[in-house]
Amino acid sequence: MSAISSKKNVPDSFGNLLSRYKLPAPVRVTRPTMPPIEKYHELVQAIWDSKWLTNNGQFHQEFERRLGEYLGVEHVSLFCNGTIALMVALQTLRINEGEVITTPFTFPATAHVLYWNRIRPVFCDIDNTTFNLDPGCIERLISPDTKAIMPVHVFGNPCNIEGIQEIADRHGLDVIYDAAHAFGVRYKGRPIVEAGDLSVLSFHATKLFTSIEGGAIVSKTGGGKKRVDFLKNFGFANEETVIGPGINGKMNEFQAAFGLLQLDMIDTEIANRRRLTGIYREGLAGIAGMRTQNDMPGVLHNYAYFPLLIDEDQSGISRNELYTRLKDFNIFARKYFYPLCTQFSCYSALPSAAPANLPVAERITKQILCLPLYGTLEDETVRTICTVIHKLAAQ
Amino acid sequence: MSAISSKKNVPDSFGNLLSRYKLPAPVRVTRPTMPPIEKYHELVQAIWDSKWLTNNGQFHQEFERRLGEYLGVEHVSLFCNGTIALMVALQTLRINEGEVITTPFTFPATAHVLYWNRIRPVFCDIDNTTFNLDPGCIERLISPDTKAIMPVHVFGNPCNIEGIQEIADRHGLDVIYDAAHAFGVRYKGRPIVEAGDLSVLSFHATKLFTSIEGGAIVSKTGGGKKRVDFLKNFGFANEETVIGPGINGKMNEFQAAFGLLQLDMIDTEIANRRRLTGIYREGLAGIAGMRTQNDMPGVLHNYAYFPLLIDEDQSGISRNELYTRLKDFNIFARKYFYPLCTQFSCYSALPSAAPANLPVAERITKQILCLPLYGTLEDETVRTICTVIHKLAAQ
Repeated sequence: MSAISSKKNVPDSFGNLLSRYKLPAPVRVTRPTMPPIEKYHELVQAIWDSKWLTNNGQFHQEFERRLGEYLGVEHVSLFCNGTIALMVALQTLRINEGEVITTPFTFPATAHVLYWNRIRPVFCDIDNTTFNLDPGCIERLISPDTKAIMPVHVFGNPCNIEGIQEIADRHGLDVIYDAAHAFGVRYKGRPIVEAGDLSVLSFHATKLFTSIEGGAIVSKTGGGKKRVDFLKNFGFANEETVIGPGINGKMNEFQAAFGLLQLDMIDTEIANRRRLTGIYREGLAGIAGMRTQNDMPGVLHNYAYFPLLIDEDQSGISRNELYTRLKDFNIFARKYFYPLCTQFSCYSALPSAAPANLPVAERITKQILCLPLYGTLEDETVRTICTVIHKLAAQ
Repeated sequence: MSAISSKKNVPDSFGNLLSRYKLPAPVRVTRPTMPPIEKYHELVQAIWDSKWLTNNGQFHQEFERRLGEYLGVEHVSLFCNGTIALMVALQTLRINEGEVITTPFTFPATAHVLYWNRIRPVFCDIDNTTFNLDPGCIERLISPDTKAIMPVHVFGNPCNIEGIQEIADRHGLDVIYDAAHAFGVRYKGRPIVEAGDLSVLSFHATKLFTSIEGGAIVSKTGGGKKRVDFLKNFGFANEETVIGPGINGKMNEFQAAFGLLQLDMIDTEIANRRRLTGIYREGLAGIAGMRTQNDMPGVLHNYAYFPLLIDEDQSGISRNELYTRLKDFNIFARKYFYPLCTQFSCYSALPSAAPANLPVAERITKQILCLPLYGTLEDETVRTICTVIHKLAAQ
């Protein structure tokens, strides 16, 4: 640390920094931790033997069961990807008109699935610490046309589920959680995916836990799961009965087999990311104008992402500048989430998308940068990334 | 054949038939022909090496290119499944309100994707020979709200594309072909997927050609393909620009790798099915009240399905009875397509769904039965199936 403070007085030249700290190969924001390939070959052999490639095959059934056990919930329905799962979640609850209150600080899929269900998104501001929907801002957005609230557990940090549920109950609204980031997260000892009426997970390759592409809906009841399972298979209740205009949301056997092997590794993956998160937090402490997130009371975190906030006025370097400079060092951070959904042309004209209504989200989106984080990342690499950020801030 | 005619006079008992002709193991309507597993293991190894599991990876790019070459078209966009592809095809052309004219004699997905695009389906009757949309019935269904015609090349038999295009041109309608069954089919020397504004393929495991699950949109132009590619990836035109509320329609690397290996086998698969189709046609000829489809002039068929029509009044056995009896012989035929889409509760109340408007479709759906057909089916099994049907008809 003394080296760092001395450098504040005599900054290195950028060329010197590069020659000392440039990583030997590109480090991306994430990278899937691959299961042992021999094990995957074995499962592929079983698929070859059965010639059953999709439609609720043996691995699909086993993955659904074991996933439920791992997450601590009973009713899990697998999907080809998390977006189609979210689309079907709305259909499951017959939310197909009017308005849904959601966050602009999310991956575009959250807003897009509303479009596919004929729903007008109403964007609500976020909390300055969790980056999740701010319950204090929700109520004034509720109109007679509001059908539901669709919050996101951004970066795996639980929403204020009690606050949101209280508002939903008072107004008779459904709550669907986009839990794409929240795999395995627990709050007050319970799985976070128990919150709300339905929760939707994503298992995309960039996620903490992956089934190549993939996703799931967590239902409250067996009956609820049955309806989800019909809808993800074209609405078929049996060979000759279709209960509604479902879709093809099926996960195939190759995805399920991959997911099964990932389940064996997920605890180690989370432990590794927790350790790396600790190194980041320590390594980035004390830089003027930069802040990171802390563990929250009562929460078992999954350490899925490492977001850093850069306040240009204090740090002397803008988020965009840092993002670009890091690339020179082979450090490929990502601006999750910039732009806000409200800045895309398909949503920007909505009244709720006006920047004046979303001061916190507008600020966070300009400051946010997610740093590389995945289980096989080396401690030393994380330390170097911290050093580089220190040096760049001191330039 | 003499044995058969003698049996007409003295029918076997059902028990005798069973003991003589029951197949040793269940034969389903279809079964995927698997590529050599060693080759798949090799491609999986390459995925392990790259750690690139989805999002336009190396196999995705190669599969898209080689598929275009095989089909004889330039602009192919891969999808996670054919249903999402069809859903996006409508969005691509901005068809998201009003009416679309389509067929009730199809898999439910065809109608369902209209729901997801806010479109009211208008069901049109079909041709007695091809089971495809009857151009003679289309024009009287066109209203000021009609946006497009969405025909299906059922069982791979080409629609009357000239007749349909003439109507579309006269009324300024788009045409999207559901070509889920029509992989590799050519008409007058041209790929059938060139017809209309867009064509959509399915590569589901039950299809002639499969990528586990999968599908594709064939676009007319590079610009058209670009729009499709944006929409299937959440509308992202680049890392920070979203051009519209797209969806996740991405095919992953494991699917693309499987599809690549299937491409090496598809000509043999079609040749095998053509041979088996010949055996069926010969073996089922001359049964009163039963008819099969013939090759059409100018068409290079793909022999994806073997549909049989059973006219109970003449055959003495109903379709449902034959379907049930065949199961006793371990022959698992499928009633493709029964019920009609118009018989599902979500569509049955539409004016165009009234049975009186769809006399041909209503008759065909009661008579249709698709018999087992896939490349690895043995000639002898097909001959036995024919014999069993002869015997059951003679009972």
